Amino acid sequence: MTGQDATARVRHGGREARRRERSHKATGLGRPYITRNIPTYDIMSEENLVKIEAAADRILAETGIEFRDDDTSIELWKRAGAKVDGLLVKFEPGMLREILKSAPAEFTQHARNPENTVQIGGRNVVFSPSYGCPFVMDLDRGRRFGTIQDFENFVKLAQSSPWFHHSGGTICEPTDIPVNKRHLDMVYSHLRYSDRPFSGSVTAEERSEDSIDMARIVFGNDFVDQNCVILGNVNVNSPLVWDGTMTKSLRAYARANQAAIVVPFILGGAMGPVTTAGAIAQSLAETMAGCALTQLERKGAPVIFGNFLSSMNLRSGSPTFGTPEPAIGSMVIGQLCRRLNLPLRCSGNFTTSKLPDAQAMTEGVMSMLAAVHCGANFLMHSAGFLDGLLSMSYEKFMLDADLCGALHTYLDGVKIDDNELAVDAFAEVGPGNHFFGCSHTMANYETAFWDSETADNEPFEKWEAAGSDDAATRANRLWKQRLREYEAPHLDEGIDEALKEFMAKKKASMPDAWY
Amino acid sequence: MTGQDATARVRHGGREARRRERSHKATGLGRPYITRNIPTYDIMSEENLVKIEAAADRILAETGIEFRDDDTSIELWKRAGAKVDGLLVKFEPGMLREILKSAPAEFTQHARNPENTVQIGGRNVVFSPSYGCPFVMDLDRGRRFGTIQDFENFVKLAQSSPWFHHSGGTICEPTDIPVNKRHLDMVYSHLRYSDRPFSGSVTAEERSEDSIDMARIVFGNDFVDQNCVILGNVNVNSPLVWDGTMTKSLRAYARANQAAIVVPFILGGAMGPVTTAGAIAQSLAETMAGCALTQLERKGAPVIFGNFLSSMNLRSGSPTFGTPEPAIGSMVIGQLCRRLNLPLRCSGNFTTSKLPDAQAMTEGVMSMLAAVHCGANFLMHSAGFLDGLLSMSYEKFMLDADLCGALHTYLDGVKIDDNELAVDAFAEVGPGNHFFGCSHTMANYETAFWDSETADNEPFEKWEAAGSDDAATRANRLWKQRLREYEAPHLDEGIDEALKEFMAKKKASMPDAWY
Repeated sequence: MTGQDATARVRHGGREARRRERSHKATGLGRPYITRNIPTYDIMSEENLVKIEAAADRILAETGIEFRDDDTSIELWKRAGAKVDGLLVKFEPGMLREILKSAPAEFTQHARNPENTVQIGGRNVVFSPSYGCPFVMDLDRGRRFGTIQDFENFVKLAQSSPWFHHSGGTICEPTDIPVNKRHLDMVYSHLRYSDRPFSGSVTAEERSEDSIDMARIVFGNDFVDQNCVILGNVNVNSPLVWDGTMTKSLRAYARANQAAIVVPFILGGAMGPVTTAGAIAQSLAETMAGCALTQLERKGAPVIFGNFLSSMNLRSGSPTFGTPEPAIGSMVIGQLCRRLNLPLRCSGNFTTSKLPDAQAMTEGVMSMLAAVHCGANFLMHSAGFLDGLLSMSYEKFMLDADLCGALHTYLDGVKIDDNELAVDAFAEVGPGNHFFGCSHTMANYETAFWDSETADNEPFEKWEAAGSDDAATRANRLWKQRLREYEAPHLDEGIDEALKEFMAKKKASMPDAWY
Repeated sequence: MTGQDATARVRHGGREARRRERSHKATGLGRPYITRNIPTYDIMSEENLVKIEAAADRILAETGIEFRDDDTSIELWKRAGAKVDGLLVKFEPGMLREILKSAPAEFTQHARNPENTVQIGGRNVVFSPSYGCPFVMDLDRGRRFGTIQDFENFVKLAQSSPWFHHSGGTICEPTDIPVNKRHLDMVYSHLRYSDRPFSGSVTAEERSEDSIDMARIVFGNDFVDQNCVILGNVNVNSPLVWDGTMTKSLRAYARANQAAIVVPFILGGAMGPVTTAGAIAQSLAETMAGCALTQLERKGAPVIFGNFLSSMNLRSGSPTFGTPEPAIGSMVIGQLCRRLNLPLRCSGNFTTSKLPDAQAMTEGVMSMLAAVHCGANFLMHSAGFLDGLLSMSYEKFMLDADLCGALHTYLDGVKIDDNELAVDAFAEVGPGNHFFGCSHTMANYETAFWDSETADNEPFEKWEAAGSDDAATRANRLWKQRLREYEAPHLDEGIDEALKEFMAKKKASMPDAWY
C-alpha cells in the first residue's frame, strides 16, 4: 500500500471496509475457522516416534512429576493407580494413554455469535492473538506497560480482522488494574468488544471460576455445562513440576466441562535438555500428565495438547525464538499428538526482535509456518509478539494478521478441476500471447491470488514517490485506521448489565492486590 | 548482535572469523552441500498429480510449443518424431517422458576446490545467491545500477559465508561493462574470488560457449567433456514459446556435457492462467520440452528441472512474490519433478519489498521454506533479492545468508539416539531443577542450537542501550566487515594469466555492444 492509497483508505474508510468484506466473501477466505486442505508435514519415522514415546514413558515411570500445593490432584492420581510418594507422582507406562482415551479428539467451542463458533481438532485450524505480554509497543510511543485500553484495542483490532477466529485471552496484561481483579475486565472486554470465542484467566482457581461464571451469564448455566464456551491456558512449571495454581485452574475448567490447554514451556538448556529429542520427550511426558488430570477431574472434558519448545543462545543465556530447532521439533510434536488423538496447540508467531523488522518476520514466519505444518488446531500466539514474547506490538499485530490471511490461502492447497487446470485457456491464448483478457482470466480474476494489505507491490519509483515507507510504517497507519473504523458487535443490554453487575460485586468483595 | 559486540567484532575480525569457523566445524553445519534428513512435503494426492500430468500432456499435444529462431532445434524435434508445423511443435503424450529417461537423476558439479564440489539431485540441497538484478541497493547509497565492483563484492560475500554452496551466476548485472563482454568479467570473478561451483552466462550462444571455454582453462578440456563444472540457467518465454537465444544456449551447455537449468517464468494472469493448477500444468509442459531438448542435443547430459511460479496483484497488474499460491504450488511441482526423476530447481528468497524490512522477510521466508520443503536440489535465488527481483541488496544478502544457515539445522531434522533423548539427564536433574550445569548440557552445549549472526536476542534494555538498531542496520555493519576481512582463495598464477589472456583476446575481437 502506498501513502496515497492509505490516505484514500482513511477518507473512504467505510467504503473500503465494505469492499474488503465483499472480497473476503467472494474468495471464501473470510470464515469462522480453517479446515485444512493440505496434509500435515510428518517428518519423523514411526520407529523414531516410538523411541520418543518410550523415553517419555521412562521419564514418567522413573523420574516422575511433582504436583505441588494441590492435595486433590495427589488424591486423584492415587485413586487412578499412580505411584505417589509425597508430592512425587510416577506413572506406569501406558497408564496416561489409557486415561486419555476419554478425551475428545475434536470439540466445538461456541462463540456468542453462532456464526463464529469454531471446531477445534481434526483438520481444523483456529488463529488466536498472542497471549501474556506485560508490555505493549507501537512506533509512536515505544515500549510501555500494557493497560486495559491497550487490551481493548487489541480485542477490537482482532475483531476487525477477518483472519482471526478467536478473540484470545490475556492479549496483554492490563497492568493498570489490580492483579486480583483484572481477569474480570479482560473477560468483559472479550465478551463486549468481540463476538468470537475467547479464553479466560487461569492465574488463580477463583479467577478461573469467575471467568467461567461470566461466560455462564452470556451462554446460560445449562448450556455451559454441556458445551465448551471458554478455554483456559495452563502451564507446566518445567521440568516435571505442576504447581497447584495451575492444576487447580486446570481442574476448574475441566470441572465446568470447559477446555484446558496444557502447555509446558521448555527453554532447552534451562527447563529441559539442550537436545531437541529430549525436550520433545519431556514435553510429551508433562503434557500427557496434565491432559490426563483433566480426565480424572471430569471424564470426557475437552482438553488441548499444547507445546512450546524454545531454544537458547548458549553464549548469553538469552532465550531465542523462531529458530530452526523448535520449528522442526514442532512437526514431531504434531505427529505424537495425533497418535494420542487429541487436539493440538502449537507455537505461533515468535521472535526476540524488539522492532517489527526483518528479524521479527524471519523468526515469526519460520515459527508460524511450523505451527500450521505440524497440524496445530489452535494457534494461541498468531499475532502481535515482539521482544522475546514480552511485548505486544500494534504494528507487528497488523503484519501478523496479514500473514494469517495468507495462510488461509496456503492451507487451501491447490484445487484441481477443469476450471483450475485451465486447459481450454491455452487453446484460446496460444503460444506467445498473454492471458490478461482471456475468458479464463476474466472468469477467475476476482477470486484469484491472495491480496496482502500490508505489502507494497508497486514499482520502486511509485513506492519512492509515495514516501519510501517500510512495512512497519504502513502497519502503523493501518492499526489506527482500523481502530477508527471499529464498530462493536451487538450485545444484549440485559446481558451487558448482568456482566457489569457481576464485575462490580466481585471487585467490591475484595481489596486490591498486586500479585 | 548489539552495537558493542559489532565493534568488538570489527576490532578482532580475524579472531572472530576463526571462532566462527571452529564453531561451524564443531556443529557440522559448514559443509559443501546439505543432504536433507527430513522428507519432502508432499501435499498432493497421486490422483491429482496424474490429472495435472494429463493437462500438461494435452497442452503439449493440442496447443504445442513454438521454437523460434533456431532451425537446429526444429530439426531435432522432427527427428525425434514430434509433429512440427513451421515453428510450432506438438508432442504426443508420453514422448517427452521417454526422452527424459536418459537424463541423470543426480550429478556432480565440480568446484575448482574439490572440497567444495557439490552433488545436485536426490536428497541434496545446494544454496546459490540470487541472479539477474540490474540494480543493487544498500542502506548508505540507496538503489543504483549494478557494476562489476558490486558483482565482485557479492561473490566475495558469498565466498565468505559458510551457508552458500555455490558462487552463483549473474548475481547482479555489471552494467558498467558492455553487454557483449560482461559475461567474461562475471565468469572471471567467480573463478578468481570464489572456489565454489558457479553458473555461466546464457545471453547468447557464443557467450555460453565463452563461459564454458573459461571453465575449460581451469578444469581442462577432457575433464569438462566428462564432468559438469558449470551451470547455465535458460528461461522459457512463457507461455509456450522457446526463443532461439535460449535454446541455442541450452544446447551449447548440453553439447559440452554441462547442465542447463530449464525455467519457465510464469506470472499467473499474464504469462499463464490465474489458477495455480493451470500454471503448474503449463510449467510442467514447458520445462519437460526444454529438458528433453538437452537430451536430443546430447543424450545423458545433466539437466535441472526448474520452475518459477509467481502471482500478480490483479488490481494494479504488479507482480507479487513470496505469496501463498506459488509457495504451495512449488510443493506440487516438486512432486511432479520427482516423478520425472530429475534434479529440481525451485524459487528462493523472493519479495517485492523495496527495503530489507518486515515485508521482505515475510515474503522471503515463505518462499524460501517452500523451496526447501518441495525438495529443491538447487536454489538459485537463495540470497539478496529485493524490489520484485530487480535489486540485489547488500543487507538483504546478509539476512538471507543467515536464514540459509538456519536451514542447515532445519534440514538436519531431529536426531534420535540415547544422547539426544537425554533420559539419564532427567534422572540427574529431577523435577523443578534447571539443566544449566548438568552433565548432559555440558557435553552437548557447544553443538546445540543454531546461532544467528544477524538476530538480536538480548533483553530489551541491553538492546536499547546499544543503540536500538534494527536487523537491517546490523546487516549493514556485517557486510562491510566481511568485505574488509575477505581473503581470496588461492588460484594458480598460470591459470589466472590464461583466463585474463582469454578475456583480453575475446574483448579485442569485437566492438562494444550494449544489447
